[in-house]
Amino acid sequence: MEEVRLGIIGIGAMGSAHATNIINGMVPHLRLTAVADIRPARLDWAKEKLPGVALYSDGREMMDSGVCDAVLIATPHYLHPGFVIYALEHGLHALSEKPAGVYTKQVREMNEAAAKSDKVFAIMFNQRTNCVYRKLHEMIESGELGAMKRVNWIITDWYRTQIYYDAAGWKATWDGEGGGVLLNQCPHQLDLLQWLCGMPTKVRAFCHEAKWHDIEVEDDVTAYLEFEGGATGVFVTTTGDAPGTNRLELTFEMGKIVCEDGKLIFDRLKENEREFCRTAQGGFAKPDMERIEIGTDGMNEQHIGVLKAFTEHILNGAPLVAGGEEGINGLTISNAMYLSSWLDRTVELPLDEDLFLSELNKRRQTSKVKEDKGIVFDTKGTY
Amino acid sequence: MEEVRLGIIGIGAMGSAHATNIINGMVPHLRLTAVADIRPARLDWAKEKLPGVALYSDGREMMDSGVCDAVLIATPHYLHPGFVIYALEHGLHALSEKPAGVYTKQVREMNEAAAKSDKVFAIMFNQRTNCVYRKLHEMIESGELGAMKRVNWIITDWYRTQIYYDAAGWKATWDGEGGGVLLNQCPHQLDLLQWLCGMPTKVRAFCHEAKWHDIEVEDDVTAYLEFEGGATGVFVTTTGDAPGTNRLELTFEMGKIVCEDGKLIFDRLKENEREFCRTAQGGFAKPDMERIEIGTDGMNEQHIGVLKAFTEHILNGAPLVAGGEEGINGLTISNAMYLSSWLDRTVELPLDEDLFLSELNKRRQTSKVKEDKGIVFDTKGTY
Repeated sequence: MEEVRLGIIGIGAMGSAHATNIINGMVPHLRLTAVADIRPARLDWAKEKLPGVALYSDGREMMDSGVCDAVLIATPHYLHPGFVIYALEHGLHALSEKPAGVYTKQVREMNEAAAKSDKVFAIMFNQRTNCVYRKLHEMIESGELGAMKRVNWIITDWYRTQIYYDAAGWKATWDGEGGGVLLNQCPHQLDLLQWLCGMPTKVRAFCHEAKWHDIEVEDDVTAYLEFEGGATGVFVTTTGDAPGTNRLELTFEMGKIVCEDGKLIFDRLKENEREFCRTAQGGFAKPDMERIEIGTDGMNEQHIGVLKAFTEHILNGAPLVAGGEEGINGLTISNAMYLSSWLDRTVELPLDEDLFLSELNKRRQTSKVKEDKGIVFDTKGTY
Repeated sequence: MEEVRLGIIGIGAMGSAHATNIINGMVPHLRLTAVADIRPARLDWAKEKLPGVALYSDGREMMDSGVCDAVLIATPHYLHPGFVIYALEHGLHALSEKPAGVYTKQVREMNEAAAKSDKVFAIMFNQRTNCVYRKLHEMIESGELGAMKRVNWIITDWYRTQIYYDAAGWKATWDGEGGGVLLNQCPHQLDLLQWLCGMPTKVRAFCHEAKWHDIEVEDDVTAYLEFEGGATGVFVTTTGDAPGTNRLELTFEMGKIVCEDGKLIFDRLKENEREFCRTAQGGFAKPDMERIEIGTDGMNEQHIGVLKAFTEHILNGAPLVAGGEEGINGLTISNAMYLSSWLDRTVELPLDEDLFLSELNKRRQTSKVKEDKGIVFDTKGTY
């Protein structure tokens, strides 16, 4: 096989962006052969913008057609697992947009289907291609930093206006989308959090619904986390702050790393803080340190990088950016945050998935899908 | 009256530093006439270092002696209210070190005594003299920033070694000191927090005791706060992080201010975010902004500034840095944080002061005062 023939299911904001990138030849050996969308207006767009690409109003029909070797799922979140399972069970490779799904019970079924399949399953965690996070991951994995003590992520630069939410009827509703800033914007950071720091063991979150926008779901979240080994952390996010902040601060036994504005600033201690604390003779003494900016390879391919890796993995076994089965981790954290806030108590992991689903379903029952204005914003530079 | 004759009760680390400053003529019109300490070794120090100053082994005896017009209380925290009340009821002006006390019920009695007295009552909130916080206070009070939306204070640069805690027997015990990082190090930030942002209405805190040191009390705290008007925030502190962080981030309708490294960086919006959110036509649009560094008067007199203001207030009515009765505000926040953590639930303000005291007393009953090593560290540059 010299190329991968791709179909995209769902050509809203993200699906259209992927289609355009591929049509423009940004991903070697990946050819867009088909797209599917239930919305006639989107197929009209595709007819004009994606010449030579087969059009389907049904994703399963597209998968059955034989014109694709692989599919990219860019539908509303609830539909991701169903399409992925269908693809894998019908001999197609699958790349799911994030989040993996809305609730972990459904995603677990998807992962089980993937385990039984010999096809490739990947997920669009494009932020993992960012050189800064890759370097940080490498440093943590090397062990040079010692144990982690604290992680504070203020990720409040996901600003969205009211019209963003009004654009599509399913958006920001419990039944249509299944969540707000945690589910739509933060899957990237929640994935990076678990990729860098491991999974938390306890979560206490405060999710505020409709705080800054006329929506059903949460647009402001503060969460406290505890990790195995005793590290603690906060995760603060919103779509209501302008200009907002994206500042990840990690404290280890060997110093502190702040990741902000595309830079990694490392306050590196000359000795392990735990040892220093026990042996220093001065009450106000502090370990010697030096501040250094950590260099990276500068590469940050984002979605293109994920698509390239997916393609090369299928063709010749090159590594994926993120295996699809890893999608459940970040989703588990956001599910736990919702559950903690809904029940007004600390939630321990592993998550009680049935309890989460029953609480989610309560909210879906009274959820109201809005009028669909059918607006598709250009997402360029927004993720 | 042309000068104020001051006595200091408690000449440990802080009291000695104040005595030395005054003896060195750093505070015009303030003369050190007496010091009191129950520890003979500290009086030996005073005899050598503070020539001509009267020495007392009992603070009340010193106050009764007639050699002072005013007293500065720098004893262990539990004793602050008792000495302040005695001073005010015996015709002396009183300046209390922070915190005002250990529990608000006791501090409320002190404030009631102050209300009945015609003498001056002040508190050592030296951080309020910092030009950066003064400027911030002025900007918030002016109304130009609009409503506050979020406050994140990561104040983890209170690093302390094990020997700091071992130095004095009362330190970091429930019965001797009454608390850890919240009560000893953070009264400054908790006072500034309420001075700048007003009092929270809800507090959910996670206090970890003996996490980084062999002590009874907490040395690691993460708290979530809600304020009247809907703003939320986090307050993260510890004495276990090196190098730690002191970063105060405040988000308002008109932009974001970050206070770090002695600078105020203001991302000022060209229009109110709330209005922009409702009217913008782009889903990913953001309000225009400009980043500016806010200038200040550069003055930061710290303890000397508080002592000068106290002296000038007594002599000619100049304003205090902080009235003593304001000490209860920050203490209420820390009391609420303890109570929230101890009871594992959200605590609403006004605080149930009796409940807090009964929970504190439970911990005092099993508290063990350690052997006193009698070490007095030089505190210069540590507050």
